Amino acid sequence: MTPSAPVPAYRRLSVEERRSQLLEAALSLFAHRAPEEVSLDDVAEAAGVSRPLVYRYFPGGKQQLYEAALRSAAEELQHCFDEPRKGPSLPRLARVLDRYLTFVDQHDAGFSALLQGGSVVETSRTTAIVDGVRRAAAEHILSHLRVTEPGPRLRMTVRMWITAVEAASLIWLDEDKQPPADELRDWLVEQFVAVLSVTARRDPQTSALVETLLVEG
Amino acid sequence: MTPSAPVPAYRRLSVEERRSQLLEAALSLFAHRAPEEVSLDDVAEAAGVSRPLVYRYFPGGKQQLYEAALRSAAEELQHCFDEPRKGPSLPRLARVLDRYLTFVDQHDAGFSALLQGGSVVETSRTTAIVDGVRRAAAEHILSHLRVTEPGPRLRMTVRMWITAVEAASLIWLDEDKQPPADELRDWLVEQFVAVLSVTARRDPQTSALVETLLVEG
Repeated sequence: MTPSAPVPAYRRLSVEERRSQLLEAALSLFAHRAPEEVSLDDVAEAAGVSRPLVYRYFPGGKQQLYEAALRSAAEELQHCFDEPRKGPSLPRLARVLDRYLTFVDQHDAGFSALLQGGSVVETSRTTAIVDGVRRAAAEHILSHLRVTEPGPRLRMTVRMWITAVEAASLIWLDEDKQPPADELRDWLVEQFVAVLSVTARRDPQTSALVETLLVEG
Repeated sequence: MTPSAPVPAYRRLSVEERRSQLLEAALSLFAHRAPEEVSLDDVAEAAGVSRPLVYRYFPGGKQQLYEAALRSAAEELQHCFDEPRKGPSLPRLARVLDRYLTFVDQHDAGFSALLQGGSVVETSRTTAIVDGVRRAAAEHILSHLRVTEPGPRLRMTVRMWITAVEAASLIWLDEDKQPPADELRDWLVEQFVAVLSVTARRDPQTSALVETLLVEG
């Protein structure tokens, strides 16, 4: 089923199925239009249901629906981080980036909307959703690197790189997805090693880490 | 005069002086509280004037005042980029970063507010103000590097580094301004060279640029 195909009215969905269906319809609308240009009527129409039904699931209206859609996109994004803890670290990071770039590619404008938090709802709450993903990304990276107590310099380096990756994704979408995803992925992994190596000059913890990464190959 | 010292009521200010005084008072309030927690009454009180006077200067009310305050902070921030075009490029970048970190240090919470665009006003307009500063930063860097036609890889690298610098500044404020500003500055310059060097492996333009930077010393 494509996201925008309305479910025939005669099919009865469970509460969970219906909720997912509405979120999917909303996400696909928010992915192509600014939140302020999406109405609940549009969502109802895209999902092939009545407006009152949308309100039954999201009594808080558009704001609640928008936040739920962002949250659901954020959860999906977090699944990119699921990576078995075996083998050398850099190929693991490359695989996570592959999934991440696929997510960015598929959600396109919706990804930009997610990162920018949107403009119709309180920024503090939507910002919190995105910040949660950023925090999770940093924790995953540090845990894959087997760092349990990251010092401030290492933590800052990882967080700066994550922000740079976000910027790269937005620019990548703006520039018709050039360079190709696999080149961008390798470039980002190499940048990760490069900025860690700079930090290694002034931080023993990072220095030990970089040595391990290079030994692993 | 400290920013929050009220000007005695008997002093007559010119229109421009009064406007600056109100913006300064607003910035200093936005620097310590979320925009939604600042009222026009607070601004009037901080500036030692009446609320109607604030409205006379900013008939659009808080939104207009907030945007004007952001714009004035953005202009001040852009002055950090004023750097004579002589001598080797990396020390120039270091001097710009010195001024930038001084700005971040002085504006503190106001700087975070500026970057986050605030939550009471249309994000699109406040985001545009901040994006303007980012664009200006990228143009300044490329022009100091004497690059007139940056290819996509070089441009992307510079923009990613600028985002990483922003992230570093926000983290720096969160972490009680550690490491010291001069260490952070050197670290950021070294990261700049490191990410350019990574890009140089796949981009002849960047490769030529890195060679020049290293020859300059």
